[in-house]
Amino acid sequence: MSLSFQLLTTAGRARRGRLATPHGVIETPAFMPVGTLGAVKGVTPQELAAAGASVMLSNLYHLALRPGVDTVERLGGIHAFTGWRGPILTDSGGFQVFSLEGLRKIDDGGVSFRSHLDGSPLRFTPEGVVSLQERMGVDIAMVLDECPPWPIERAVAETSWKRTLAWARRAREAWQGKGGGLFGIVQGSVFPDLRQRAAEELSQVEFDGYAIGGVSVGESESDRHAVVEWTAPALPQGKPRYLMGVGYPGDILHAVAQGVDLFDCVLPSRNARHGVLFTREGVLRIKNARYKDDPRPLDPGCGCPACARTSRAFLHHLTRAGELTAAVLGTLHNLRFYLDFMGEIRQAIELGTFEDLAVRLASQSTEPAHGLESLAPVIFDPHDQARS
Amino acid sequence: MSLSFQLLTTAGRARRGRLATPHGVIETPAFMPVGTLGAVKGVTPQELAAAGASVMLSNLYHLALRPGVDTVERLGGIHAFTGWRGPILTDSGGFQVFSLEGLRKIDDGGVSFRSHLDGSPLRFTPEGVVSLQERMGVDIAMVLDECPPWPIERAVAETSWKRTLAWARRAREAWQGKGGGLFGIVQGSVFPDLRQRAAEELSQVEFDGYAIGGVSVGESESDRHAVVEWTAPALPQGKPRYLMGVGYPGDILHAVAQGVDLFDCVLPSRNARHGVLFTREGVLRIKNARYKDDPRPLDPGCGCPACARTSRAFLHHLTRAGELTAAVLGTLHNLRFYLDFMGEIRQAIELGTFEDLAVRLASQSTEPAHGLESLAPVIFDPHDQARS
Repeated sequence: MSLSFQLLTTAGRARRGRLATPHGVIETPAFMPVGTLGAVKGVTPQELAAAGASVMLSNLYHLALRPGVDTVERLGGIHAFTGWRGPILTDSGGFQVFSLEGLRKIDDGGVSFRSHLDGSPLRFTPEGVVSLQERMGVDIAMVLDECPPWPIERAVAETSWKRTLAWARRAREAWQGKGGGLFGIVQGSVFPDLRQRAAEELSQVEFDGYAIGGVSVGESESDRHAVVEWTAPALPQGKPRYLMGVGYPGDILHAVAQGVDLFDCVLPSRNARHGVLFTREGVLRIKNARYKDDPRPLDPGCGCPACARTSRAFLHHLTRAGELTAAVLGTLHNLRFYLDFMGEIRQAIELGTFEDLAVRLASQSTEPAHGLESLAPVIFDPHDQARS
Repeated sequence: MSLSFQLLTTAGRARRGRLATPHGVIETPAFMPVGTLGAVKGVTPQELAAAGASVMLSNLYHLALRPGVDTVERLGGIHAFTGWRGPILTDSGGFQVFSLEGLRKIDDGGVSFRSHLDGSPLRFTPEGVVSLQERMGVDIAMVLDECPPWPIERAVAETSWKRTLAWARRAREAWQGKGGGLFGIVQGSVFPDLRQRAAEELSQVEFDGYAIGGVSVGESESDRHAVVEWTAPALPQGKPRYLMGVGYPGDILHAVAQGVDLFDCVLPSRNARHGVLFTREGVLRIKNARYKDDPRPLDPGCGCPACARTSRAFLHHLTRAGELTAAVLGTLHNLRFYLDFMGEIRQAIELGTFEDLAVRLASQSTEPAHGLESLAPVIFDPHDQARS
């Protein structure tokens, strides 16, 4: 195995770990900013590192369609291609393919689909998806999974997770292990026993890490939390656990408390482009007229390029005017917020104050500062939380 | 006077100077990136400084409409508001107001117009425009000028420059001089004798600097160059000279040779957003299929964030996909290109090799590298060169 995971300390089920990859170390719990096409929208690789990111997430489905894996390989692999020098995890694209309703046809061997760009016919198999990710030289590859929609009938969910498990075994066989590692994915929708069985069976297959997939597809917060509670403890203790496509700070905190180590979500970047900005005191919508003359930084505790130099009033002005710099500054801020938040979580686990942090954030979530919105998912939109 | 201009050395008419302002020194000849609304589109103030900018240009007309001068003043002035800590020059907005055909009415006292945003009635006077810029705390304010369209009849051009001159005198009277400096503007369209008389008369009024306005409005390159040749030498030797809204590297080089010190243009940033990128070997259109697998940086001689980390192939990919990061990386590159180019010019004047530089660039302009376009204005579009 080319990845090594070390558990440094725990606080209840919460874990403080260190995941070593060919392109560097990821201190966990960690948040992985989403660079679907090889770059976080509006952010240079240098700015992403300066924001505190230790790992970037990208997406095989999108890169395979454009520019194509051949191109990425010819250009020296995904790190040389994107200019991001740290670890890269690629999602396999299961989620994207299964979102292509009417354009895809699944069988036990894999999934055939048409490109959402030009309609050209393509096929993903468990073996092929592993090979494509290995060819790109990613640090962490994900198996091809079937990501069912929500809601779903129990019988369909059962067929689905069993196929995902069979595919995971085939992927593991196909994995060359020349560099980086391969993560399996647990499915099973919102059915407790299916999730637990899926987790137990997948744990019998030796992966470098285990992911919880099929959440953030429209289910309720309580369903999402329940899935994590059933699944995470059933995964191998000595391997990293990754909750895919999640989520709000409250979701992340809950999952860390259940023993999850890795997260990704488009929320910080996508929300920023819509003027929805995270602060330690709550969520603010920067277009709101109340910020027109507000001289304060977005968040006095933040050291991002926006907070270091400018005010809520300036970001309000740029956002209202539709200026590109508003999206850039907002994205850098929201990413820094998420990455700082993960740092606080790591420190709290080390110091034995994780429960205090959880209590403090829970109270902030229900009582945001005047004029702000709760950090809890008051702005929940299933599309906002989608794996992208 | 709060500005001081020192001529360090000359090479023929070309000048190497140093303009000290309340917020820092501008080494001239200098290029001023355009942040119309207070930010260069897609660029943070920190990245703008890192690109090598020593001064940013902004625009009174746009800021007066949105967010309003009151807001900028309440927030501590234009530097605190925008987070740009170096010198700021604001264009008065004459060019913008006179572009509002049908929405504006000019008289000897000033110009009445309707906001292009909401149609609300507004009026700019020579005195008012000076006061608004002083209230924002700019380092260099521009007088209100009448910027006639092209082509224009001689009689109209004559009435127009005389009004601009009368306004300049009133602006100079109104200027409090609490900080920063005030530049006058020469008009006169493409008529040699009008330009020369306008320059001579304006030189009798004591300004901190003198600008050549009314170019880059659609006239031919030879007309534009002729205007500079007639006007620049007629301006006071000991004060900085600013050619407004120009232009291509070839235009800048020509004007420096005529003794111009300051430039601004939206070309590097606007072209970048359309995938038109400047290199030492010529202009490349990054969307072109020839760059799909090109592993080279945009320009091997460039140290910008794009060239330091990524390839033409990656920028091609991001641009084709419409990714925000393509605009950001392209803008950072083009700005660095322009700012490096000005550095080369300054060094050449100091070393006495300015003529060699001009010859070398002229040959590159006519013989770009294989597959590239000339650095000369082959992509000329009058709207691209507009003062914005």
